[in-house]
Amino acid sequence: MKNKIVLSGMRPTGKLHLGHLHGVLENWKKLQEDYSCFFFVADWHALTSEYADTKEIKSNIHDMVIDWLSVGIDPEKAILFIQSNVIEHAELQLLLSMITPLSWLERVPTYKEQVENIRDKDLGTYGFLGYPLLQSADILIYNANYVPVGVDQVPHIEFTREVARRFNYLYSNVFVEPEELLTDYPKLPGTDGRKMSKSYNNSIYISDSDEVITKKLKTAMTDPQRVRRDDPGDPEVCPIFAYHRIYSTTQQIDYVTDGCKTAGIGCIECKKILTDNILGELIPYREKREELLKSPETIEDIINDGNKRAREHAAGTMARVREAMKF
Amino acid sequence: MKNKIVLSGMRPTGKLHLGHLHGVLENWKKLQEDYSCFFFVADWHALTSEYADTKEIKSNIHDMVIDWLSVGIDPEKAILFIQSNVIEHAELQLLLSMITPLSWLERVPTYKEQVENIRDKDLGTYGFLGYPLLQSADILIYNANYVPVGVDQVPHIEFTREVARRFNYLYSNVFVEPEELLTDYPKLPGTDGRKMSKSYNNSIYISDSDEVITKKLKTAMTDPQRVRRDDPGDPEVCPIFAYHRIYSTTQQIDYVTDGCKTAGIGCIECKKILTDNILGELIPYREKREELLKSPETIEDIINDGNKRAREHAAGTMARVREAMKF
Repeated sequence: MKNKIVLSGMRPTGKLHLGHLHGVLENWKKLQEDYSCFFFVADWHALTSEYADTKEIKSNIHDMVIDWLSVGIDPEKAILFIQSNVIEHAELQLLLSMITPLSWLERVPTYKEQVENIRDKDLGTYGFLGYPLLQSADILIYNANYVPVGVDQVPHIEFTREVARRFNYLYSNVFVEPEELLTDYPKLPGTDGRKMSKSYNNSIYISDSDEVITKKLKTAMTDPQRVRRDDPGDPEVCPIFAYHRIYSTTQQIDYVTDGCKTAGIGCIECKKILTDNILGELIPYREKREELLKSPETIEDIINDGNKRAREHAAGTMARVREAMKF
Repeated sequence: MKNKIVLSGMRPTGKLHLGHLHGVLENWKKLQEDYSCFFFVADWHALTSEYADTKEIKSNIHDMVIDWLSVGIDPEKAILFIQSNVIEHAELQLLLSMITPLSWLERVPTYKEQVENIRDKDLGTYGFLGYPLLQSADILIYNANYVPVGVDQVPHIEFTREVARRFNYLYSNVFVEPEELLTDYPKLPGTDGRKMSKSYNNSIYISDSDEVITKKLKTAMTDPQRVRRDDPGDPEVCPIFAYHRIYSTTQQIDYVTDGCKTAGIGCIECKKILTDNILGELIPYREKREELLKSPETIEDIINDGNKRAREHAAGTMARVREAMKF
């Protein structure tokens, strides 16, 4: 299995929350056992929407990589690198741009959707239109077999296959056609019931202290219909219950479900069980983090080493690309 | 003066003809005396239209560089390099793409014109739309002060200034705003009176032998109204006369003008004077060429050295670009 290649990237959003942990990182931890994994910080991608304000990119990268490492993404098993440190990605995007019809990019479903929906930023740039092609370059330059994505990103993988096929047809058979690894992960709402997101200020971060997490959970939203202690509640509409599904044992889940529906237990007790479970999960991550923070040069070494290994792979592919194109 | 920077590139079209010699290379020879010049082979640009057939790019580059060197483009005075060997151009284009509105590219006058006029190739690609931005990267990465262009290319320099200003405004003052050096060179028609062009098969090449040039001129078109030896002719409509304007002395020009108008001389005599002048000009170029062809490793060394020097300059700019963007 280890000869199959997986590629996955995250934009440098800064410190990661429990949504990232269960949505992405737990999956990466499994993948790194079975595949040759390339996990990268997509800092150039961040520019497609954040070009006007880049001052936090560097510290966001740093915070994010620490989170990766502290939860167990393992540089002995996977290659961790920063996209902007492998400038061959830009070269490959440029070369692919010459054979990629504009219409293919214009009909990527996420494109028009985002241009129409995001009103506070000007996304009508050449770079934003081209970002699925930069993703294709990210994937093809490592000849990745699989790319873990959510269902909304499937068209990007289809687009990448089309680009790979066109290149292979016009020049020669250089690129593997990647497949999506559909990851169906549990949705984790924020403490206000909306999507967990930095911008909503409703997130529980992997790096939060016990006190902060306890406090965030204490004030977190529950079933809004359950106003008083002796009102029965509905776990299905309670964000706290969504967390129990991930963090609690079957026994605990049965206990709080029944307790909530019958008003047998109050929200405080229910939250206490959850809080203990979350804090318990985070203990080993916190220990690893503290160890890492003691030697910042280790983190730098890991990234430098990952960049170097990624560059070697990318250089190998680019040599074949240039040869195929007769450069 | 030598502290001002000039940048100019040519697509790798293969061996160059007299139109290139008088339109571009004579100008470069003057510029290299007065400025720090970067002259480059725009091989990535060739892909915007020639992506489907790249098999001649390498030999075209080789033939073109030999022509540059043989006519007197001097690697001691100018930096000669190949665009695709300085991959930072691609990185800079990518970074600039994030801040460049699509509409700026869509309204570059040459863009719609070419998409509409060139019917035998599919130019509706992402790369073709972006090629003025690749030009901007070519120019800005060396902080060129001047770019020699024909009048139809002025909008590309204006576009580059807009991109530079936007970058300088959003981040910090990294880029020089380049100015066009309008070069008003004599138009040299092909031997059939149309534009001199490889694809029309009407070109006289710098590397043509004496015999070939003599033959091409002998069968070249003259004033079509002058059918017989004793018909008077009109030099203004005769392609051969356009050559005399460049190649002949005032005295010779007066002589052939009068001889043509009065039927005092025939086309054969008129062409003989021109042929001698053209062949005479090409003698030192041919000697230089023969010298170069004897040591192909010299050409390679020149290009490798030029690539290296260009990369050093580009790397310096990119360090400032990344710092300005907080990467």
